[in-house]
Amino acid sequence: MVILGIDPGTATTGFGIIRVVGNSFKTVDYGVITTPPGIPMEQRLVMIYEQMNKIIDTWKPDQVAIEELYFNQNVTTGITVGQARGVLLLSCAQKGLPVFEYTPLQVKQAIVGNGRAEKKQVQFMVKTFLGLREIPKPDDAADGLAIAICHAHHDQTKTRRNNERYR
Amino acid sequence: MVILGIDPGTATTGFGIIRVVGNSFKTVDYGVITTPPGIPMEQRLVMIYEQMNKIIDTWKPDQVAIEELYFNQNVTTGITVGQARGVLLLSCAQKGLPVFEYTPLQVKQAIVGNGRAEKKQVQFMVKTFLGLREIPKPDDAADGLAIAICHAHHDQTKTRRNNERYR
Repeated sequence: MVILGIDPGTATTGFGIIRVVGNSFKTVDYGVITTPPGIPMEQRLVMIYEQMNKIIDTWKPDQVAIEELYFNQNVTTGITVGQARGVLLLSCAQKGLPVFEYTPLQVKQAIVGNGRAEKKQVQFMVKTFLGLREIPKPDDAADGLAIAICHAHHDQTKTRRNNERYR
Repeated sequence: MVILGIDPGTATTGFGIIRVVGNSFKTVDYGVITTPPGIPMEQRLVMIYEQMNKIIDTWKPDQVAIEELYFNQNVTTGITVGQARGVLLLSCAQKGLPVFEYTPLQVKQAIVGNGRAEKKQVQFMVKTFLGLREIPKPDDAADGLAIAICHAHHDQTKTRRNNERYR
């Protein structure tokens, strides 16, 4: 199964794609979608939407995991990130992909085992889980991978639970 | 010139379309895009996006005016409305329409001459400006028309100013 993890943002949207094979994860791709400031917001949203469409067409993920937004952010940030998140969700839904949402706390919990883990700890564990030589850069790309791994963990737990029920 | 006014929302997006002929306004269409609760958010965003595409294709507006979101709303509302606003802006940008933004205060100021005007006063003036027999229903549709009228006023002021400069 191929999982696409998304960390939404208007200036920078991070993404990470992993393939789950049994209990191990393989890195497929990761990176960021960036848009320049100083151009109309609606043009930036078109860029985000089109680039996400391309990523999905290229890697054909089976499922999407996206970060649920912080509720302690300020409202202006919430609205702006919400707009980016809207076109990202649209892209995924139009491609028929099931979308799963995780809070930053759930991601940290799944990756480090501690919802209050520091960013560096999460990045270190992403590197370890994926057997990478370096911590993936930039930070938003590492966040995208972290969300994908978080979903893989949740999904495996669910599968394991379902199997146990039928033993 | 045909102006499309949009009052964005996830459950209900209001829209109003007017034609500006000289100093008078004609009502072209108004209504709401609604989405049912209880289905995944990404599916609701697809509905909003597709219905807005249809409205634009049907009425072929020249310009779009959209409500800028309240900054005193709570963050959760901001994120949710932001998502709907994102796909609406995407639809407009993909159709090549210029987008103008107005705060609720600017809309009230333009329609009633008072930024603290009550909703009922705004609705009454919308009815008067458009020469309608009844106040347009539902409220969100009236809001869409109000935003379109607000933009028409601003645009006319700008044109008048430009003409004055060349006298």
